[in-house]
Amino acid sequence: MAITVVGSVAFDSIETPAGRRDRCLGGAATYFALAASYFTSVRVIAVVGEDFGRRQEAVFLARNIDIQGIEHAAGKSFFWEGSYLDNLNEAKTHSTELNVFGAFQPKVPEAYRDSEFLFLANIDPVLQRRVREAMPQARLVAGDTMNYWIKDHKSALLEVLKGLDILLINDTETRMLAGNPNLVLAARAVLAMGPRMLVVKHGEYGATFFHSTSPKGQSAERTFRAPALPLEEVVDPTGAGDSFAGGFFGYLAAQPELTPAVFRRAMFYGSVMGSFTVERFGTERLQQLSRAEIDARFNLFRELTHLD
Amino acid sequence: MAITVVGSVAFDSIETPAGRRDRCLGGAATYFALAASYFTSVRVIAVVGEDFGRRQEAVFLARNIDIQGIEHAAGKSFFWEGSYLDNLNEAKTHSTELNVFGAFQPKVPEAYRDSEFLFLANIDPVLQRRVREAMPQARLVAGDTMNYWIKDHKSALLEVLKGLDILLINDTETRMLAGNPNLVLAARAVLAMGPRMLVVKHGEYGATFFHSTSPKGQSAERTFRAPALPLEEVVDPTGAGDSFAGGFFGYLAAQPELTPAVFRRAMFYGSVMGSFTVERFGTERLQQLSRAEIDARFNLFRELTHLD
Repeated sequence: MAITVVGSVAFDSIETPAGRRDRCLGGAATYFALAASYFTSVRVIAVVGEDFGRRQEAVFLARNIDIQGIEHAAGKSFFWEGSYLDNLNEAKTHSTELNVFGAFQPKVPEAYRDSEFLFLANIDPVLQRRVREAMPQARLVAGDTMNYWIKDHKSALLEVLKGLDILLINDTETRMLAGNPNLVLAARAVLAMGPRMLVVKHGEYGATFFHSTSPKGQSAERTFRAPALPLEEVVDPTGAGDSFAGGFFGYLAAQPELTPAVFRRAMFYGSVMGSFTVERFGTERLQQLSRAEIDARFNLFRELTHLD
Repeated sequence: MAITVVGSVAFDSIETPAGRRDRCLGGAATYFALAASYFTSVRVIAVVGEDFGRRQEAVFLARNIDIQGIEHAAGKSFFWEGSYLDNLNEAKTHSTELNVFGAFQPKVPEAYRDSEFLFLANIDPVLQRRVREAMPQARLVAGDTMNYWIKDHKSALLEVLKGLDILLINDTETRMLAGNPNLVLAARAVLAMGPRMLVVKHGEYGATFFHSTSPKGQSAERTFRAPALPLEEVVDPTGAGDSFAGGFFGYLAAQPELTPAVFRRAMFYGSVMGSFTVERFGTERLQQLSRAEIDARFNLFRELTHLD
């Protein structure tokens, strides 16, 4: 099944202990789409500026990603500059320029309207909601958000949560959204806000899958924790969470049936895609994977955590 | 096989968001011994003061723990006071009184000298080494340490590491000991200091087992990660790491053969015992478990992390 993703396509300048890259292709929708493209067909809704040209387009096209929903506007693309010099687990933001993203009005191309899977990457919840409403046919809707929207745009965000099947956020965001420092209680509070399922990403420690116990939640079974691989070299953590989401949702979209076992495997594929992303700067690693490499790492994760 | 453990037996005053306990029985050797006692017979070497009486003894005796190695000295027992009001993952120490522990000279009772398993809990590395040398028959020796010894007593600690089969420490201690922020590289550096195996405890995220690739390391196979259970209520995190060590080492000591599969299961039993400890204050939960409860939680951990 095809996935439509709406979110940022951007340029990032990144500095880590391993080095520096200026204006490399980034953005949540980019990482998500590349990661998901190894599992299913992906369609992107975003806006870019005049600095987004053939070279950037080629990255999507090489992975057969549909970019007719990427609108070209006058001005510059979204730009983020950050570093991870002191702590590889937390980016220090030096600069965020919304540029063309500031006036983004997502439009859903006619050809995207049969997408059964919809991913609302981390953008203004007002826009997330608009896209969700424009795509009523979507039968599984997942989304991400961040501390900024939780703190200052909570009522708009709560409206989005009502329309989500799956929310994917990190530990801090879960606790902040629920106002509860205990992760299990916070997860339960978040599930009561709308989503049937919640994936809490723990960075280098993996991710936990929670589901509501309501009758609607029968496609998933109890809490599940997927590992992350302890890595010898983390070159650049940027995009790991979006890559997790792409692997997770991409794998789901490619399955004939969404059984509890499928959700468990999706969590593992999410961790796998995140682990590849951090091995190189930006999307470098995500651009040149093979499904065989992905499945080999999936098996490594299984060996890393399974008793028998 | 019997385990001998040397370490602190103490009184703790603890404050957490769930409440407060004054002068409850604590100490690394206490948590370790109680946790291990559900798997095998345990013998304790420690020193206590005149405040340690029948009531405290009864806690050990109820679990059939051999306490003839607990020396009674004039004065007060080791005392620790701490709180976890802001962060359940990190204790804030208000007071540490070594008391009789300050002049502790561990003596190994004759009846302990056939112990094939030896655990050196977190005490002065000079004492750890002395006990290790006094028990040459021990065929599997594991130990713990902490930031204080790593920072200010490193050369004595390095001597201890040479005599260890397994070191169990947390993330921060591993990075500090190796002087490397990357966990995998830090683990490799620690293994080069002597221990064949390293268990890095991640608190609420579980623990990772690393082993050296030297021919000596054939009893274990590649890296393994055990989960921690996301808990609804963490009442008191004190002793979770020592309980992990007790479950891990206790399970090992009870097995006829130390295969790679046994080490994996031991990691799970470590996590299981840690998860029980934090459910109540001090050693309250560890005093009243059953092996059936332990195995039920072991199965829950398996379900929580296994794909099929």
